[in-house]
Amino acid sequence: MLRILLLPLMALQWTVGVGSQPAEYVPATVPGACQADIAAARNYPDWKFSDNYELYRWMEDETFTYRTVFDAPRREAGQSVWFRAKGIDYECVIILNGQELARHEGALSPVNVCLDAALRDKGNELRVQIAPVPKRKGVKVGRDEASWCCKPPVSYGWDWHPRLIPSGIWDEASIEIRNAAWLEDVHLGYRLSDDFSRADIRTQVRTGGQADGACIRLTLRDRDGKEVFAASAAADQAIEGRLDAPRLWWTWDHGEPYLYSYELRLTTADGRLLDSRSGQTGFRRVRLVMNEGSWKRLKSRPMSRNDAPTQIELNGRPIFAKGSNWVAPEVFNGQITRERYQELIGLARKANFNIFRCWGGCAPGKDSFFEECDRAGILVWQEFPLSCNKYPDDPHYLAVLEQEARAMVERIRNHPCLALWCGGNELFNAWSRMDDQSLPLRLLNKVCYEMTPEIAFLPTSPLNGMAHGNYVFRDGGKVVHEWMDKASASAYTEFGVGGLSPRSVLERIIPADELFPPRRSKAWIAHHAYDAWDANRETWLCIGHIEYYYGKPSSLDELIELSSIMQGEGYKAIFEEARRQKPFCAMALNWDYNEPWPAAANNSILAYPAIEKGCFGDVAAACRPVCASAKFTRYQWGPGDELELGLWLLNDSYDSGGQTYSLRALLVAPDGKEQEIGRWTCDPLQPNRNARGPQLHATLPRWDGVRRFGIRVCVDGHPEMDSRYTLAYKAE
Amino acid sequence: MLRILLLPLMALQWTVGVGSQPAEYVPATVPGACQADIAAARNYPDWKFSDNYELYRWMEDETFTYRTVFDAPRREAGQSVWFRAKGIDYECVIILNGQELARHEGALSPVNVCLDAALRDKGNELRVQIAPVPKRKGVKVGRDEASWCCKPPVSYGWDWHPRLIPSGIWDEASIEIRNAAWLEDVHLGYRLSDDFSRADIRTQVRTGGQADGACIRLTLRDRDGKEVFAASAAADQAIEGRLDAPRLWWTWDHGEPYLYSYELRLTTADGRLLDSRSGQTGFRRVRLVMNEGSWKRLKSRPMSRNDAPTQIELNGRPIFAKGSNWVAPEVFNGQITRERYQELIGLARKANFNIFRCWGGCAPGKDSFFEECDRAGILVWQEFPLSCNKYPDDPHYLAVLEQEARAMVERIRNHPCLALWCGGNELFNAWSRMDDQSLPLRLLNKVCYEMTPEIAFLPTSPLNGMAHGNYVFRDGGKVVHEWMDKASASAYTEFGVGGLSPRSVLERIIPADELFPPRRSKAWIAHHAYDAWDANRETWLCIGHIEYYYGKPSSLDELIELSSIMQGEGYKAIFEEARRQKPFCAMALNWDYNEPWPAAANNSILAYPAIEKGCFGDVAAACRPVCASAKFTRYQWGPGDELELGLWLLNDSYDSGGQTYSLRALLVAPDGKEQEIGRWTCDPLQPNRNARGPQLHATLPRWDGVRRFGIRVCVDGHPEMDSRYTLAYKAE
Repeated sequence: MLRILLLPLMALQWTVGVGSQPAEYVPATVPGACQADIAAARNYPDWKFSDNYELYRWMEDETFTYRTVFDAPRREAGQSVWFRAKGIDYECVIILNGQELARHEGALSPVNVCLDAALRDKGNELRVQIAPVPKRKGVKVGRDEASWCCKPPVSYGWDWHPRLIPSGIWDEASIEIRNAAWLEDVHLGYRLSDDFSRADIRTQVRTGGQADGACIRLTLRDRDGKEVFAASAAADQAIEGRLDAPRLWWTWDHGEPYLYSYELRLTTADGRLLDSRSGQTGFRRVRLVMNEGSWKRLKSRPMSRNDAPTQIELNGRPIFAKGSNWVAPEVFNGQITRERYQELIGLARKANFNIFRCWGGCAPGKDSFFEECDRAGILVWQEFPLSCNKYPDDPHYLAVLEQEARAMVERIRNHPCLALWCGGNELFNAWSRMDDQSLPLRLLNKVCYEMTPEIAFLPTSPLNGMAHGNYVFRDGGKVVHEWMDKASASAYTEFGVGGLSPRSVLERIIPADELFPPRRSKAWIAHHAYDAWDANRETWLCIGHIEYYYGKPSSLDELIELSSIMQGEGYKAIFEEARRQKPFCAMALNWDYNEPWPAAANNSILAYPAIEKGCFGDVAAACRPVCASAKFTRYQWGPGDELELGLWLLNDSYDSGGQTYSLRALLVAPDGKEQEIGRWTCDPLQPNRNARGPQLHATLPRWDGVRRFGIRVCVDGHPEMDSRYTLAYKAE
Repeated sequence: MLRILLLPLMALQWTVGVGSQPAEYVPATVPGACQADIAAARNYPDWKFSDNYELYRWMEDETFTYRTVFDAPRREAGQSVWFRAKGIDYECVIILNGQELARHEGALSPVNVCLDAALRDKGNELRVQIAPVPKRKGVKVGRDEASWCCKPPVSYGWDWHPRLIPSGIWDEASIEIRNAAWLEDVHLGYRLSDDFSRADIRTQVRTGGQADGACIRLTLRDRDGKEVFAASAAADQAIEGRLDAPRLWWTWDHGEPYLYSYELRLTTADGRLLDSRSGQTGFRRVRLVMNEGSWKRLKSRPMSRNDAPTQIELNGRPIFAKGSNWVAPEVFNGQITRERYQELIGLARKANFNIFRCWGGCAPGKDSFFEECDRAGILVWQEFPLSCNKYPDDPHYLAVLEQEARAMVERIRNHPCLALWCGGNELFNAWSRMDDQSLPLRLLNKVCYEMTPEIAFLPTSPLNGMAHGNYVFRDGGKVVHEWMDKASASAYTEFGVGGLSPRSVLERIIPADELFPPRRSKAWIAHHAYDAWDANRETWLCIGHIEYYYGKPSSLDELIELSSIMQGEGYKAIFEEARRQKPFCAMALNWDYNEPWPAAANNSILAYPAIEKGCFGDVAAACRPVCASAKFTRYQWGPGDELELGLWLLNDSYDSGGQTYSLRALLVAPDGKEQEIGRWTCDPLQPNRNARGPQLHATLPRWDGVRRFGIRVCVDGHPEMDSRYTLAYKAE
């Protein structure tokens, strides 16, 4: 949502220093982070290289002070001057000309401070003092330190994130002139009729200042600029009206993410403009409904409850959610730009994703993230900033959480991409130890119910029926193909397979003489090739798994190739099997999309900042709306083995009805020669229904000196639906 | 909570008639029900006999009008006259002297109407018009008809309840004089310190009228009448203060249900009394915490969430909840008296119960129910009036539900017996089809969070980890002992075994010539001996099971005896096995306690109105705080079989620490001769921990012509802890 700048906003020059009375100020980038500014001024080496991020550690316990100097803007009678910041991380004091004007806790709620009480005509000194980062005392170093505050815990150290805790002015900040009344919030509410032929609009605003007698007017225009709706009301009332035949907003794979432009004007009774907002919005109904077949799952007594619903229904259509866990794409969240979001969201469409789960361990996206998702037609599952901790039933924590949650809901709820709210990550598991009675989650339910009752709320993920994990190709002697065959979840909302980053990334972060063979050096460890999640599993490089199937690689490039094959095959196995389990299964979201620094090895499919990893194409292939698929329950095969594969045509499309396809499965020998294993012509497809083909069998020949072979499934006349798999071969 | 009658309340004489302009009025009992009044006036036969309740069916679709005539009471300046009803079921219009003054929907929220606008000095005619009972159109006859309203669905017909839908003025109603301001609600809030040495009191009121400048004063007295706390505040503020060393309220089995008396006075600034409330309250902290061992239950990935907590912790002590599902003990709920509650709650203590689950299909108890539970030291799990239906996300329904829920919470929350709130019964199961996203349950969670955040809220029962059922001794070829051995729930919150009522009850409801042998006649069917739950299971008499184990009974008395043995043994098997599964298992609540009419056969342990059934003593024995227990995994045995039993000493007491007991198991032959099977001396008991003894074995001899034998477990020197079991014997 853009604020129309009817009134002059002053661009400010900021500096920042260490301490509450800094001896020295250095240039500051706003939005940004104090730590980045200080490091730049002191010429710190690239924090992404090796373990350089540890140089930043001392800054955690410092106070920082931002400073700017400005002359008071010219203003008319009835106008006032405000400092407005969309987000200051995490606790701050606002001081003008030595006078404390406000204190604020919480990075997600805006800071709005009237400056008039201390304003001079010339040379005003505004200081924003940032407290040391909050740390709960008496707990072990790491995410636990963030368990009594609303600061995203990931920056306290995670299995895929260095310990580097940013703070400071992380979103837009300005000095602005306000008229006698202004808009604090605009809620573009509506309700679609059951047949989607009509939107009953109900728009309400929250105002500041003296809005008695003021009016609001909402105008909607279609993409061609044609006005399709206009109505007015008193500012303390709702604008109500009806829009016939609204163009619906769809995800890109099910239609068009159609957006309307809106303008909301706040005026005096005699029509003088006081404030306005404009932007884009869309009309859609998105719900979570029970998964098909779910009610039939309980049979015998004693009987528990049925599972929680996870089926997304968009505009009346159940759709399969394919996507990824989104984490903030920069460690210094304040440095993220719209262009970064555009690039990453563009790649998500290339990956055939229609949803992001915005994971609760990180800060939520800026406004431009949601605007770009609206435009791209990608749904957003948005979590509140709780993850893997036991957040307390403490009154102060609950008060800050409510303030932060309300601010998040106000900021995001007008975006059609919003699919569901979630309290946070893995809170009902043993490593977090929250439960259904935890007050923070009951509070979030209440806030979401009050502010967006039409949007689903999950207290956490996973809930019963849903599943997280595994995160490695092989565990307890079993490979991903085997456990996915046994699993039967309503939604796979996290799963991962590790893989190396491309050479160009590795060269930026690992000293040249350590590049090959990889070893447990501090650079490889700091970049999560070893010991990141669990030392026993050698995560995330998992070199033992690579050597188990393919032997010792002879070069870095071969290692990267093999690691990429395994990551790609692992992800294909999970995404495709989750899709085969449709309609009961409704979601497949891998862990994770892109991480905020260059890892040597990790579960992501993009390497920082937005580089396609080897597996990217495999994931994109597995998520095509309509594609061939082969199901295997083993990964490694040998001479004489009877290879078995199940043939499928996966179909998430509603436009595919009635079509028939002919599929052929081919065994691809190591020398590239292909041999047909079987053929199948599917019955006419039903919309959004997979077609299941025959089980095919082939006896594998002896190939000497090779460790892999391939399977290809071709769709006659539709090469864009073909699929290929690389399997491991063991001759002895 | 009693309202101190500072001002005269007028006792009213009520009449009632059919229609909105009745041709004839008949005497009405208030509180009561229109249907009962009309039936009495028309000399209907006892509705409990045979299928006589069907005579009442026509009244469902009638309007009823209550009428009373009164002279206006004398009042002083500033006083007003009100009609106040604690509950009118279900929709009503209040008319004074022909003028409509108010409309109300919902039986659980009070009706308060100022009469001044239409009041005359003499001969005022007050009419209360009751709408026909609400029925959702277009659904099948039965509970579905109640799925869009807040009327308890049970009276629309249930497997243990006749279709008989009462309406009318079901709780106290009066004309009262009010001063300029009055108390609408008093919330006696407090928070106990972590060591329970201090209560931080925070009492707030909601006032009506003109309470500007008014004051409130709270006084607490101990049981000896000694004032222990007194503090005042402005009426729009909270009374805050500290009570040191409060005597805690405990369930009877863990301490004393200690109550304090309170008085809350509302006065003018110069001390003139405006209104007051007084009653009893207590101090306790009751929570639901995670079950012991629960966090360790998830092992492999993909991984779902851990189960919902069900462990009640009272004043810091995890306690095992033993009890029963409570349903309204009268079909005409308005006819219930304090004496009925006292009798039933007294019997619950005799049954060694410490909790009732007040099931959501019925109307909640009157105030005196909670007062008596406070006194008896019995916890209350209170549900909102939703059960086995899909209650809608409909704005009107949600508004009425919120009003009703808020009224329930205000009425109940000062009672120390309140243990937890629950949205209703079996709403997340296939026969109801609500889910985590259903707005009525999200709303109830919100209301409870706002009004009583310290009290747990379950959206429904069962949740994941909890279990309902089974309800028969034998199902799918397996007996209760077998499936309980396999089950592992955190809480068994419903389970039942059918059994016949005593002869005295049967003679009241079954025509004499149908008494024996029982048959599928309309009287037996109407009273739930056949076809009540599921025709295939012959519920609830289950004569097939009786004959399977014991052959055809030769008389009614023998049939009753055998049915009672099976009900008693079935209940012992479940209650004792649930206790053996402690500490992971935390609750055992049978379905049900007492039903609101005399059933021929059902799951209850009392027969209407409060008659101990044959199984009652068995249930009471299985729930003793400390008792011997034998675990069997079969019920029927034969000659030469190696009988196996597991010996246990069940212990829910915290006072038992360090004691040692010696147990002997005896085989009791059909002729009464006893033979010792084994002995065991337990290690010193730990508080609230069971002790598990050896598995004992005995080869059974051949006994001819008998169908049962016994096992007795004796505790040396403690005959009050002995247990005995009757098992089935099959010679051929």
